[in-house]
Amino acid sequence: MTKFADSLQEISVSKKSLVSIGLDPDPDKMPLPDVFEFCKRIIDHTEVFTAAYKPNMGFFEAFGLEGLKSLEKVIDYIKSNYSDVLIIGDAKRGDIAATSSKYASAMFEIWDFDAVTVNVFSGFDSIEPFLKYTDRGVFVWCKSSNPDGYQLQDLIVKGSEDRKIFQIIADYCVSWNNEGNVGLVVGATYPEELKIVRDIVGELPILVPGIGSQSGDLEASVRAGLGRINHGLLVSSSRGIIYASSDPNNFGLAAANASFNLRESINNILEDVGRSFI
Amino acid sequence: MTKFADSLQEISVSKKSLVSIGLDPDPDKMPLPDVFEFCKRIIDHTEVFTAAYKPNMGFFEAFGLEGLKSLEKVIDYIKSNYSDVLIIGDAKRGDIAATSSKYASAMFEIWDFDAVTVNVFSGFDSIEPFLKYTDRGVFVWCKSSNPDGYQLQDLIVKGSEDRKIFQIIADYCVSWNNEGNVGLVVGATYPEELKIVRDIVGELPILVPGIGSQSGDLEASVRAGLGRINHGLLVSSSRGIIYASSDPNNFGLAAANASFNLRESINNILEDVGRSFI
Repeated sequence: MTKFADSLQEISVSKKSLVSIGLDPDPDKMPLPDVFEFCKRIIDHTEVFTAAYKPNMGFFEAFGLEGLKSLEKVIDYIKSNYSDVLIIGDAKRGDIAATSSKYASAMFEIWDFDAVTVNVFSGFDSIEPFLKYTDRGVFVWCKSSNPDGYQLQDLIVKGSEDRKIFQIIADYCVSWNNEGNVGLVVGATYPEELKIVRDIVGELPILVPGIGSQSGDLEASVRAGLGRINHGLLVSSSRGIIYASSDPNNFGLAAANASFNLRESINNILEDVGRSFI
Repeated sequence: MTKFADSLQEISVSKKSLVSIGLDPDPDKMPLPDVFEFCKRIIDHTEVFTAAYKPNMGFFEAFGLEGLKSLEKVIDYIKSNYSDVLIIGDAKRGDIAATSSKYASAMFEIWDFDAVTVNVFSGFDSIEPFLKYTDRGVFVWCKSSNPDGYQLQDLIVKGSEDRKIFQIIADYCVSWNNEGNVGLVVGATYPEELKIVRDIVGELPILVPGIGSQSGDLEASVRAGLGRINHGLLVSSSRGIIYASSDPNNFGLAAANASFNLRESINNILEDVGRSFI
């Protein structure tokens, strides 16, 4: 069985891409009214440039059951047409074990995601049900990209040599990685923290959202986030790619350009640091 | 507009009940195969004894789209037949603001829950989109009922007079309660921590899960969790009530008995401390 970290490296190398594209369908921004048709157009135009799609569950849930039916079609479409690209269910789920088991079953068995994001607030027994799916990836939310994340994540823990909560989480992630399926989420808006996390977690994959509309620092993030052996990094952009144009006749091409540009920008940085794919 | 804390007190008094019943439909345990029929039977037999139902989203999601269709029917059924009882969507959602806005829309507009549980890991701007629904309740997960919750929640924060993360969260909740719609979730398995939280949050409502199968301490929890003016407390049991019997012909009555007994046990404690409804 291929470990998730290896699958990620494989697709990154074969696509020469560390790009993840967030699918955040928003009725106020979509140039097409139909969620599936919108996502399909984005996917068809960007697939060649991306290693992963990251459907954001909240955006689909806000459409009600129809949104979730669209998500089902989106996942089927990707798997049928572009079977190598990873699909990451971004849902930040996490609850006591009995409930997390159900969320894990929903995410990995019903939706059949290759990887998920999870919320670690209630500790290991709330994450373990996800980790039991040993061929899937489990990205633990460690340092969020939003301004107020500091309110909990940056608190300094007494008796820990002045480490912050997000560093403690990174420690936990290392200790929980018995099956090679643990990753972390660290926002591109905090490249210094990303560097700290990378130093703690060694080769664990890191998913870095916040590029584009959230103004995360791409160059600093790539330099800070790269693993030493594998690349171990996915740089995720949502709005900056999928809403690159609001023109119903042109948004697919605009998304293609935006995802191509993101891949090239990342790959130029990789070249600068001697880590290019070629 | 009635504030959530007042709605909660109103229903508690009119039902003479601080009971919340968790709806956790589990195919391995349900005496009936159909999710809606199972929940309907539970509801019809227990409604008179309970102030709230707490559908647990993970359990419905694990059935796929069919489970969510059943949830829709369950909510419609409660609203059509027992319009005064509160419905709390237990989903522990929380993400950066743009995504939390979508989750809030899903929980309050699509599902039309009276209240939700949320995850505070990424700070205020991740909770604010829920708080904007000023007539609904937002229960912030503060101290979880599971064994590993201590891994983050009990870490002592440097420079805080040795307070733990869950105490910091309780502080935040007080400061965020501008609209009278903030509550907290504290597990019945930690009555000492519940007392600490109650002392911090004054009159804010507290939802206390973990009674029954998780062996939370009922008497200690009620004594520790009561507000001083309003009762401000919901004691939630799931498995202990809905799976009180596995007999398809008898489980409704068994659930009625279990919920009646829980209400009576709580009300006896209230009487002991001079806080009975009568």
